Amino acid sequence: MEVFPPSLERMVTALARLPGVGRKTAQRFAFHLLKGAPEDALDLAEAIREGAERIRRCDTCGNFSEAPVCALCQDPRRDRSVLCVVEEAMDIAPFDRSGFGGLYHVLGGLFSPLHGIVDPEQLRVRQLLARVDGGEIKEVIVATPPTADGDATALWLAKALHSKGVALTRLGMGMPMGGSLEYADEITLQKALESRKSI
Amino acid sequence: MEVFPPSLERMVTALARLPGVGRKTAQRFAFHLLKGAPEDALDLAEAIREGAERIRRCDTCGNFSEAPVCALCQDPRRDRSVLCVVEEAMDIAPFDRSGFGGLYHVLGGLFSPLHGIVDPEQLRVRQLLARVDGGEIKEVIVATPPTADGDATALWLAKALHSKGVALTRLGMGMPMGGSLEYADEITLQKALESRKSI
Repeated sequence: MEVFPPSLERMVTALARLPGVGRKTAQRFAFHLLKGAPEDALDLAEAIREGAERIRRCDTCGNFSEAPVCALCQDPRRDRSVLCVVEEAMDIAPFDRSGFGGLYHVLGGLFSPLHGIVDPEQLRVRQLLARVDGGEIKEVIVATPPTADGDATALWLAKALHSKGVALTRLGMGMPMGGSLEYADEITLQKALESRKSI
Repeated sequence: MEVFPPSLERMVTALARLPGVGRKTAQRFAFHLLKGAPEDALDLAEAIREGAERIRRCDTCGNFSEAPVCALCQDPRRDRSVLCVVEEAMDIAPFDRSGFGGLYHVLGGLFSPLHGIVDPEQLRVRQLLARVDGGEIKEVIVATPPTADGDATALWLAKALHSKGVALTRLGMGMPMGGSLEYADEITLQKALESRKSI
């Protein structure tokens, strides 16, 4: 027989759809919400509902936004001549913390020849080419991850942009800050050697 | 400046209150909800809202329930002479899967002398004593965990119940099914030796 009421089962099922959350963890989440003050659970429900209803993609860059154009794209203090192309909106925050002051473009994914994703229409590529054609952009930094798919995407973008008269760069590779040499892989060390600097 | 809209920040803050979820994981949850179909996010919001509004504690045993008395306590097929005392409602499901057919009582916590929790009024102890006084119960199984707090609670319950004329038992201890001898601690092995059986 069912040990718990149907509304609790429904909560667990819905929570278990979160990424990396299995049934056990979803149960722990549900029990936590039911053990705490009902206001906290209702606040979470309301935050999710409000987010799902209000948040859309910025028409210009693809970042999450409540307005048609996001706060970053509207900010007059940002350098409009440099564009950082990222895979997903969540990649924007770390760049912004690093002090990058240009604009962003969210692809919404990567080309993945191995998985058959090679259609530029599945990514926000047309919007990227239109922005470059606008003429204000002088440099495009392709900040896709250093993986097979990230490389394939960077290569595709390089081909598509090479006749547009903008500088095209990719993120430098080498040792991460605080990284351990003992655990560094050979490709990272090879890139770090190639990009060595005199001290 | 804020990279993301305020409603997204609110989502992340609310999700980060889930147990074991930090800001990074909360962000991943929020991005996942916003990337997927809005209906899925709204469904999760609605499931949490409905759960928080409908689910309460069973007046009899303390299990989660939509009705004043839960389905387990109402089930006429269950053995009303055996009562299994557990720490939390989430402990009921594994017992039920194991085939236990009696009734449950949820304490809602444990006595913790080390943390100063020694007040029986903080737990559902009064309700337990009232149920035992009802006369139907012949055996109380104290299924608190084999920890210092679980032991302290079992001891306290043993004192409170010893004059009530019910059999009082605790869960057997020994090797868990599929457990590795190599990683078994000395106390578990000691208990397993004490409770050895002829084959």
